[in-house]
Amino acid sequence: MQLSTASWPEIEAYLSRSRGIVIPIGSHEQHGPNGLIGTDAICPEVIAQEAGDEDGFLVGPTFNVGQAQHHMAFPGSVTLRPSTMIAALQDWISSFTRHGFTRLYFFNGHGGNIATINAAFSEAYAPWSLRGEPAPFACKLVNWWELRGVGEVCKRRFPVGEGSHATASEVSVTYYKYPGFQKRVSMDPKIAPNGPIRDAADYRARFPDGRIGSDPSQATVAAGAEIVGVARAALIADVHRFFDDAG
Amino acid sequence: MQLSTASWPEIEAYLSRSRGIVIPIGSHEQHGPNGLIGTDAICPEVIAQEAGDEDGFLVGPTFNVGQAQHHMAFPGSVTLRPSTMIAALQDWISSFTRHGFTRLYFFNGHGGNIATINAAFSEAYAPWSLRGEPAPFACKLVNWWELRGVGEVCKRRFPVGEGSHATASEVSVTYYKYPGFQKRVSMDPKIAPNGPIRDAADYRARFPDGRIGSDPSQATVAAGAEIVGVARAALIADVHRFFDDAG
Amino acid sequence: MQLSTASWPEIEAYLSRSRGIVIPIGSHEQHGPNGLIGTDAICPEVIAQEAGDEDGFLVGPTFNVGQAQHHMAFPGSVTLRPSTMIAALQDWISSFTRHGFTRLYFFNGHGGNIATINAAFSEAYAPWSLRGEPAPFACKLVNWWELRGVGEVCKRRFPVGEGSHATASEVSVTYYKYPGFQKRVSMDPKIAPNGPIRDAADYRARFPDGRIGSDPSQATVAAGAEIVGVARAALIADVHRFFDDAG
Amino acid sequence: MQLSTASWPEIEAYLSRSRGIVIPIGSHEQHGPNGLIGTDAICPEVIAQEAGDEDGFLVGPTFNVGQAQHHMAFPGSVTLRPSTMIAALQDWISSFTRHGFTRLYFFNGHGGNIATINAAFSEAYAPWSLRGEPAPFACKLVNWWELRGVGEVCKRRFPVGEGSHATASEVSVTYYKYPGFQKRVSMDPKIAPNGPIRDAADYRARFPDGRIGSDPSQATVAAGAEIVGVARAALIADVHRFFDDAG
Amino acid sequence: MQLSTASWPEIEAYLSRSRGIVIPIGSHEQHGPNGLIGTDAICPEVIAQEAGDEDGFLVGPTFNVGQAQHHMAFPGSVTLRPSTMIAALQDWISSFTRHGFTRLYFFNGHGGNIATINAAFSEAYAPWSLRGEPAPFACKLVNWWELRGVGEVCKRRFPVGEGSHATASEVSVTYYKYPGFQKRVSMDPKIAPNGPIRDAADYRARFPDGRIGSDPSQATVAAGAEIVGVARAALIADVHRFFDDAG
Amino acid sequence: MQLSTASWPEIEAYLSRSRGIVIPIGSHEQHGPNGLIGTDAICPEVIAQEAGDEDGFLVGPTFNVGQAQHHMAFPGSVTLRPSTMIAALQDWISSFTRHGFTRLYFFNGHGGNIATINAAFSEAYAPWSLRGEPAPFACKLVNWWELRGVGEVCKRRFPVGEGSHATASEVSVTYYKYPGFQKRVSMDPKIAPNGPIRDAADYRARFPDGRIGSDPSQATVAAGAEIVGVARAALIADVHRFFDDAG
Repeated sequence: MQLSTASWPEIEAYLSRSRGIVIPIGSHEQHGPNGLIGTDAICPEVIAQEAGDEDGFLVGPTFNVGQAQHHMAFPGSVTLRPSTMIAALQDWISSFTRHGFTRLYFFNGHGGNIATINAAFSEAYAPWSLRGEPAPFACKLVNWWELRGVGEVCKRRFPVGEGSHATASEVSVTYYKYPGFQKRVSMDPKIAPNGPIRDAADYRARFPDGRIGSDPSQATVAAGAEIVGVARAALIADVHRFFDDAG
Repeated sequence: MQLSTASWPEIEAYLSRSRGIVIPIGSHEQHGPNGLIGTDAICPEVIAQEAGDEDGFLVGPTFNVGQAQHHMAFPGSVTLRPSTMIAALQDWISSFTRHGFTRLYFFNGHGGNIATINAAFSEAYAPWSLRGEPAPFACKLVNWWELRGVGEVCKRRFPVGEGSHATASEVSVTYYKYPGFQKRVSMDPKIAPNGPIRDAADYRARFPDGRIGSDPSQATVAAGAEIVGVARAALIADVHRFFDDAG
Repeated sequence: MQLSTASWPEIEAYLSRSRGIVIPIGSHEQHGPNGLIGTDAICPEVIAQEAGDEDGFLVGPTFNVGQAQHHMAFPGSVTLRPSTMIAALQDWISSFTRHGFTRLYFFNGHGGNIATINAAFSEAYAPWSLRGEPAPFACKLVNWWELRGVGEVCKRRFPVGEGSHATASEVSVTYYKYPGFQKRVSMDPKIAPNGPIRDAADYRARFPDGRIGSDPSQATVAAGAEIVGVARAALIADVHRFFDDAG
Repeated sequence: MQLSTASWPEIEAYLSRSRGIVIPIGSHEQHGPNGLIGTDAICPEVIAQEAGDEDGFLVGPTFNVGQAQHHMAFPGSVTLRPSTMIAALQDWISSFTRHGFTRLYFFNGHGGNIATINAAFSEAYAPWSLRGEPAPFACKLVNWWELRGVGEVCKRRFPVGEGSHATASEVSVTYYKYPGFQKRVSMDPKIAPNGPIRDAADYRARFPDGRIGSDPSQATVAAGAEIVGVARAALIADVHRFFDDAG
Repeated sequence: MQLSTASWPEIEAYLSRSRGIVIPIGSHEQHGPNGLIGTDAICPEVIAQEAGDEDGFLVGPTFNVGQAQHHMAFPGSVTLRPSTMIAALQDWISSFTRHGFTRLYFFNGHGGNIATINAAFSEAYAPWSLRGEPAPFACKLVNWWELRGVGEVCKRRFPVGEGSHATASEVSVTYYKYPGFQKRVSMDPKIAPNGPIRDAADYRARFPDGRIGSDPSQATVAAGAEIVGVARAALIADVHRFFDDAG
Repeated sequence: MQLSTASWPEIEAYLSRSRGIVIPIGSHEQHGPNGLIGTDAICPEVIAQEAGDEDGFLVGPTFNVGQAQHHMAFPGSVTLRPSTMIAALQDWISSFTRHGFTRLYFFNGHGGNIATINAAFSEAYAPWSLRGEPAPFACKLVNWWELRGVGEVCKRRFPVGEGSHATASEVSVTYYKYPGFQKRVSMDPKIAPNGPIRDAADYRARFPDGRIGSDPSQATVAAGAEIVGVARAALIADVHRFFDDAG
């Protein structure tokens, strides 16, 4: 079930049986020579929507632009400053808790978001913690690539050149969703370098075509389909553990 | 062409031939008994993407949650505070201008966003105006229902009960896009009341099922298709006037 | 009755008979070759104070500097960033509602303020809407030139060259108030051009002497007196409609 | 010369002969049983305008609502939070320096503003200090009661019961300006108590009618006239010392 | 008793017998040729800790970086913008009042902090004052050099060249605490100049070696010991007056 | 070398030979029944100061209060909201880079700080990344317990009950520094439970005496001495790798 295509009476009915929601959260930023700029928003969105349709849990709109300052030297990247992202997440959290949602599961597709999302959770809890009242909600952050079983599939599919940005796996997931937008580009070097992440100019100097440690030319629709399948099942299980407050 | 499914080299190539981008901007909020919560994001997104695919202009990701504080008494509505929305739009604008975009066309689907978007434009221009340097970009706000010819179609299709929130027309556009999510609900009263917009409790008291002045049970896929067709052509023309700096 | 010249016991007494206040809100910015920089603060202040003195409703201090970033290429213009103006209005609203005022009528003299004032209203309502409590106050924005009958007088007085910035009418109102500060300047061109409003450098390039579409050399004290008279009566009526919650 | 009644070409001409401006800054808050709520805005405004008219220096619009949180338990008081006031002063300072003003003389009427104004100056200097560039402007804060000779007059006129809030002197200055708004109220106790200033509830408990240490029933138009006369001359001298960078 | 070296059960026990805390607050900034950068943090920390150890009152962690924008042209100076410092003090105050502390005594070592600390107190009281509820805490600011008897010792020890920044007295206090870090530098001129404080570049031009009005080469460990002794006793007395709400 | 006890000419000299600084960063929060509230500030401070004294690198003042909202149900805990902490770190970073420091090594003692510090780094880089200029500095975050060799010592010393909050190791380090403040408390249960971290009330319910997974009654001065010794050497090596831009 998706919030976007539901009516408010349908959400009211949903709330009488569940107090949990899954919110895909991503980014729009370069993903190397053959990856889609929307990759980090698309991956959690596809997995969450397929899982939500199968299981019945509610999927919110995708928080589709995140913290990507280090990608800004590549055309098309969009970023929020962390302080802005914290304010925006605060408002999303306030909105959902206002309606009685008590379990907010943020399903993330972008490594660069992790610190800011966790800081936003603390920002949301802080007024309650400072007032001495229990917060009427709990937030959880899960990255799609850390769901049970997903790492194994990725490693088996791409034993070499999975990498950490513009990975073969994430590009596969987007190709599975948007097969018409596959881009065939030969990679040079075959596998991209690794290094620290700082500002945008430093990033571009270290990673001239945007990839980190990866060879995404290996990406295929079939791999994407397999990854989504495994992730979908794992997500359903993990979401219920959280909604039932068991972890 | 859509930013989400493009790679950064494709955006680099696009920038060599155009400096303009269209950014759909909407909201997630109740749209009465039979309208989709995502209506105001879906309408400009559908029109912009169809127009962009036909014409070739670039369509950015949808700014999908906006200013909707007055809808918060209906389950599922999500809002940003205006101050947050201004900060977020500031970051989007900074990101696009950083890449050399000089014409940012915000294509809006939500009346409640208008004031805040215009305030955000002033916020974005202000540092340049205070420094005494020309801003290297121009922003424009257009609501889809104000595009040339669209009002006429809506009035012809729905001479009675078009209304101003959860309109028959906007629900039709969403049904055209998501025919599987049509909801058949009889309206009571047939046509919803009108009145001022203040806080959420006041709104719910005045407009108990969420509609303002409308009878959206008239919505049809066919009407949505016609509206989108007219809007698509008008958008292409209007976008080029702006990109060419002619208005 | 004016807040500035009242004592607190007088305001306490006023609150026992009315819960409404009128707050003039304007700007300090260039108004073309012969217009006063304070025009947009002076106009609503004059009308509100005359009306308040006649009728007995309370007039607050004038919020005298507003959003005027686009005027900053002309010496003497002053601006708040929209985010600052929202914060300041928030504090004014909090202050008045703290004392038990429930109807805040913002009486505006500056087109560039409209979006930001409306955004500020949403910002003020949002905490209540997100908490699920009724806001204990209502805000209304009215521009003086939109009061019943005012447009007709302006059109009759200045059928050509009324324009939209540094209008013949608003300059007349200030000359009525400050006849000693009338400035006689011949306009070249007679009627100023029209165009979009963006940043300050763009504005100055489009409107070299500051006017938009107007010929304010037609301004007279007599026209100002007539406009104020019509506006005063219309304001009294409109204020009571709002204070009585009838619109 | 006043900014409000000047045109932009007049300000342009002024800037060719002086780079200094005087900005009255006050508050709207209770001033005891017989004092005007606008007292702290009126006093510096009257003195500055008379002095500016006599001498020719430029007087900006009055920053008329300031930091007055401690007065909020008395009807009619208005306050900005200090953080808001700092942001607003930042924008005023940016606006004036944008036009080439290099000496900003803030002429204050409210003790509760002093800390926040000084903090705002540091906020305005900080970006320059952190960038390692000289700030192209200097700010100065002067309270009207500290001008040379003013204290002596006040002490001679009101040897007993001058006090520190709702003083006999400041009420006299407002009566001089607005003789029609004199209020005759007997004070009980004759002289108000003294004590620390904290939050509004604490203030009202310590100072039940709003005064601190004063007996403002002594206020007269004549005393106000004498005070304004002395202050006007002292202000002209002090302003020129600052504009000439001699102090 | 110091918060840093206490456990939470010890603080819980302390709160059963006292509701007051002393918070040293300083700065890290240049202190002339022979002064320590940490001087303004060290001085109140040393006095407070010695007094707290003697008397038993609780001493919080030192707020060790403050408002020092004017010192930024000297290597090693660190500053918060006033708006940041207000936010941080707000959080400290919220934290302590959450635990039931009702008397927060800020013991300051830096003149440049005074305005911002006072503004922060108003910021902390404002939400209570605007809500119409009594604030459950009171804040007090005391500068160590203003404690009873301290000025006399400083004047006797350093009748010439005490000055107002990098004073002989404050350097003495730091030498008493850190005798191993005494620096012997001859001063040129013997006594530093005086003048106004603005931005960093202006400050460096006026005060080339960082001192204002002082000759800190007179500083000695013995003078520091005497000053700390006098201040320690005075602080204990003053803290109890405040904790007992007697001033 | 420590910033606090250096003079500005000494820092100027240091900058001629190194552009790096180490900034200890911690928290003040409960550390279980026998741990010091200042633990997370003390640990990195002790290690950094010993290492800096041995090696000669510069150690800044300790950022001593961090993000600890989840600890607020225990008396004595102090927290910054993440948004405040980001602003404060921004100012520290701006201050150091203003003086020419290009390598800022944040040496952390508190797990709850990690997300916010990383978000702050992105906030500091963002203006450069959005302007398209290289940031003139690089930041690095290192937790003391992750330095090479430290984990091994901790595991050998405390094979059972090391835990993740109020660990036996960190309490040992503070006992090494402050042997006079060792507290002997028997733990019940012997080893504290584990679980997720949310708001303060939830935390206190899950971890009634504040510990997570630990038995800190094992802490000893000797263990602390050994840990500090290993960490000191590792820190020196790691700092130089970073200052030399080798990682």
